[in-house]
Amino acid sequence: MKIKIKRALLSVFDKSMLDKILPTLKKYKIEILSSGGTFKYIKKKGYKCVEISDFTNSPEILDGRVKTLHPKIHAGILFKRNNKKHVKQMTKNNFSGIDLVIVNFYPFEKTLKNTKNDEIIVENIDIGGPSLVRAAAKNFKYVNVVTSEKQSDYLINELKKNNGSTSLNFRENLAEQAFAETANYDRTINSYFNSNKSINFPDKTLLKGELVQSLRYGENPHQSGAIYSFDRSKTLIQLNGKHLSYNNYNDIFYGLEISKSLPKKIGTVIIKHANPCGVSAEKDQIISFQKAFECDPISAYGGVVICNYKLDINTAKKLNDKFFEVIVAEGFKGNALKLLKNKKNLRLIDSTNINLQSNLSFQSVLNGFLLQSTDFLKFNKSNFMVVSKRKPSSKTLEHLMFAFNVCRYVKSNAIVISKNLSTVGIGSGQPSRLDSCKIAVNKMIKFYKNQENLVAASDAFFPFVDGIETLVQSGVRAVIQPSGSIRDKEIIKFANDTDTVLVFSKTRHFRH
Amino acid sequence: MKIKIKRALLSVFDKSMLDKILPTLKKYKIEILSSGGTFKYIKKKGYKCVEISDFTNSPEILDGRVKTLHPKIHAGILFKRNNKKHVKQMTKNNFSGIDLVIVNFYPFEKTLKNTKNDEIIVENIDIGGPSLVRAAAKNFKYVNVVTSEKQSDYLINELKKNNGSTSLNFRENLAEQAFAETANYDRTINSYFNSNKSINFPDKTLLKGELVQSLRYGENPHQSGAIYSFDRSKTLIQLNGKHLSYNNYNDIFYGLEISKSLPKKIGTVIIKHANPCGVSAEKDQIISFQKAFECDPISAYGGVVICNYKLDINTAKKLNDKFFEVIVAEGFKGNALKLLKNKKNLRLIDSTNINLQSNLSFQSVLNGFLLQSTDFLKFNKSNFMVVSKRKPSSKTLEHLMFAFNVCRYVKSNAIVISKNLSTVGIGSGQPSRLDSCKIAVNKMIKFYKNQENLVAASDAFFPFVDGIETLVQSGVRAVIQPSGSIRDKEIIKFANDTDTVLVFSKTRHFRH
Repeated sequence: MKIKIKRALLSVFDKSMLDKILPTLKKYKIEILSSGGTFKYIKKKGYKCVEISDFTNSPEILDGRVKTLHPKIHAGILFKRNNKKHVKQMTKNNFSGIDLVIVNFYPFEKTLKNTKNDEIIVENIDIGGPSLVRAAAKNFKYVNVVTSEKQSDYLINELKKNNGSTSLNFRENLAEQAFAETANYDRTINSYFNSNKSINFPDKTLLKGELVQSLRYGENPHQSGAIYSFDRSKTLIQLNGKHLSYNNYNDIFYGLEISKSLPKKIGTVIIKHANPCGVSAEKDQIISFQKAFECDPISAYGGVVICNYKLDINTAKKLNDKFFEVIVAEGFKGNALKLLKNKKNLRLIDSTNINLQSNLSFQSVLNGFLLQSTDFLKFNKSNFMVVSKRKPSSKTLEHLMFAFNVCRYVKSNAIVISKNLSTVGIGSGQPSRLDSCKIAVNKMIKFYKNQENLVAASDAFFPFVDGIETLVQSGVRAVIQPSGSIRDKEIIKFANDTDTVLVFSKTRHFRH
Repeated sequence: MKIKIKRALLSVFDKSMLDKILPTLKKYKIEILSSGGTFKYIKKKGYKCVEISDFTNSPEILDGRVKTLHPKIHAGILFKRNNKKHVKQMTKNNFSGIDLVIVNFYPFEKTLKNTKNDEIIVENIDIGGPSLVRAAAKNFKYVNVVTSEKQSDYLINELKKNNGSTSLNFRENLAEQAFAETANYDRTINSYFNSNKSINFPDKTLLKGELVQSLRYGENPHQSGAIYSFDRSKTLIQLNGKHLSYNNYNDIFYGLEISKSLPKKIGTVIIKHANPCGVSAEKDQIISFQKAFECDPISAYGGVVICNYKLDINTAKKLNDKFFEVIVAEGFKGNALKLLKNKKNLRLIDSTNINLQSNLSFQSVLNGFLLQSTDFLKFNKSNFMVVSKRKPSSKTLEHLMFAFNVCRYVKSNAIVISKNLSTVGIGSGQPSRLDSCKIAVNKMIKFYKNQENLVAASDAFFPFVDGIETLVQSGVRAVIQPSGSIRDKEIIKFANDTDTVLVFSKTRHFRH
């Protein structure tokens, strides 16, 4: 059902969209109502405009807190054009229709970023705007509602196409977006109140995301999928290759979480099936890549490589010799990028923009979701306690802490064997800790020849001696693990009997 | 700052809360404004009440679409009581303050459940209510806003405690909850528009949850955590034992997802670290438990058992002999419950209420989340194709489909070996498919003696022959896997050379 727009109400905080829209409104002889700053702006630009207080015959009061909250405005938006009783009441009250509402809200979110002054923040909760928008969206059968600058072209094109009218489908799309806008707006306000009161887990919560991309499919081709961001301005930049898949995104962000836990601009992480199959924090980038790769060169095939540094040509050459699905780096040096771009399908991703880490992480379960504070704990020496007779050198302690840090990102039960600052065996995702030990040892034996200076980490305590025993028998000389087992004493005794360094962590780091 | 309430505006769709609140309002001589059904209800109950149209001197029009959207109402709520200019304007316009707003909205969500008539649904989008609530919540420094029946006692107690006044902290709490209410309300409306337009992945999305429980901690003790439900009326019922932990919830819901994919009221699942360590779909409950347990009796220790049936005394006795953290069942027979309750810490959970499955699943990543349609694909024979010369009997095909179904719930790369309708070896969470094969085989060899009639499933294709070779060499006689490898032909040749049944699935089932 096409409907001609006769009268529009404009009330915008951000005036930038007006320049674009005003000529079109004029072209189709649409009368404009406005007030305050919007009114002044429109007049200054030389367009006709009726002031809202003249339209309602009611003064603007309370510093603009009450302008549009008036029956004449809301009836003008809300009346059903095909309802005789409504039309009669409109006429009787000398009310007239408003067919287009263009509103953007007081910038609550931006204000939050700019000030800690609660008075100013609360003043930026828009009341009139959302009321207008919700009324117009409810009555989308007859009324158009524009809530963001991005919709300007959409409106202009629709009016041109229909010579000043709009289609029902168009109005319904706008209504959908309007309620997304109001819901998000109030969600942000609610979060402000929650964080003011230090409420982490409110009775009702809304997790907000901005669509980055609809994906070709989800985790599998028969599923649909999409990636959402908490802040779309901070996303990955793709420089080459095929579209990223759902599983690519999962692996990339998982890998970035690990690489960002390493020293700044140092280290390489290789991910396969959402588990690391090699991590190195060697300072030299080419060595760090090689060490990460050598941890499990078979699994690394087709994996996702995360370079926590600006990739140079020498490392790029090494990478270019192997098959990877995705290479992520904190920037690419010119000739490195050029070389890698020769493979047309190879996905090259610049991660420089990614510095946001959410304080909350969540995952859906059968009919709801689990929400938790993210495990961002920074390790320092006070988190650990040497419990064996043999004391670690400061180098060994550094190596242990590296292994323990990687271990927290491996799916539980997790065992990581490392040498210097590189993993050499990772055992992941087993219901039995002993099995994870065996897997880690087998990886090490399979791919790694020099078995000296080995250290190992466990994400939780060993329930029995057999786990640490398996590690020590394969050449591990120092072990780090959380305490808490009823057999901790036996474990310490075993370490002392075998002259092994044993360090206890105060914190456990399950990850599933 | 304590503030005395002089005037309240009441506009409720659900009248149930009024009986409770009206005597208190009367006691503290609070003037009541109201209209429509609420006005009639209050008068009928014998309380004084001023009709809003008398207060505003403006008629109620458009079938109640415009009642409270009036400057006198909104100024009465919004004016700053400590601002001289505001107070002067109020006096000049003969406006007066409204200090308490009690509103519940048109029942949009309920309407959605009751009708498919779009006209009725849209009519149930409340405009006036949210405007009042938002205005009152913004001005919480002076104004109180009650949005749900659950807050009645909170209000009554506060008024009693302060002899008709309320504290700033009280008003701020109400404001927080008010914006949660309006955000949720508009989120539901937005979802309605999205589903009408078949939009799965809107530009902005809000994932909604109702708090079931704040947990003692998250995945680890240094993290905070909570469990949210999409519908709090459908939750687990705990009958015994310690509080459920974050990891318990994760395992329980993961296990329920598997058990609910089995035939109705049949089968047992044992979960450890968010991976199944034994699944059986044997019809007899005691046999199904035993078979699930025997798959990996060591890992099952301290695990979560999901009984997809009403647990009887005989099975309970078997369960009682072992150590589990949680036992979930579709109900407990009287004497079974009594027996198990003897262990005071043992968590006993009735899962009868859980029948909701969300069509969308999600998980957070570094700075956003991945959202996808859930892998609910029901398997039937047309999903599969026999590609080997040797054809499976209908029994073998049934066993293969059982193994393939379990396999989709095992973390990738996933390999499941089973015998009849029970798993005997599960290989999970490895970056290399061959490693998962070896793990599954080792589990089988370790715990399972009779190696006849073995079948195996892989969640994705074998990239090389070595994986299927490992399985067949250990006694597997039939294999099911998705097709898609460039070496599919080699795999088929290997199956034919070894007289193995090979079935290809049209769908892949990664799970990470």
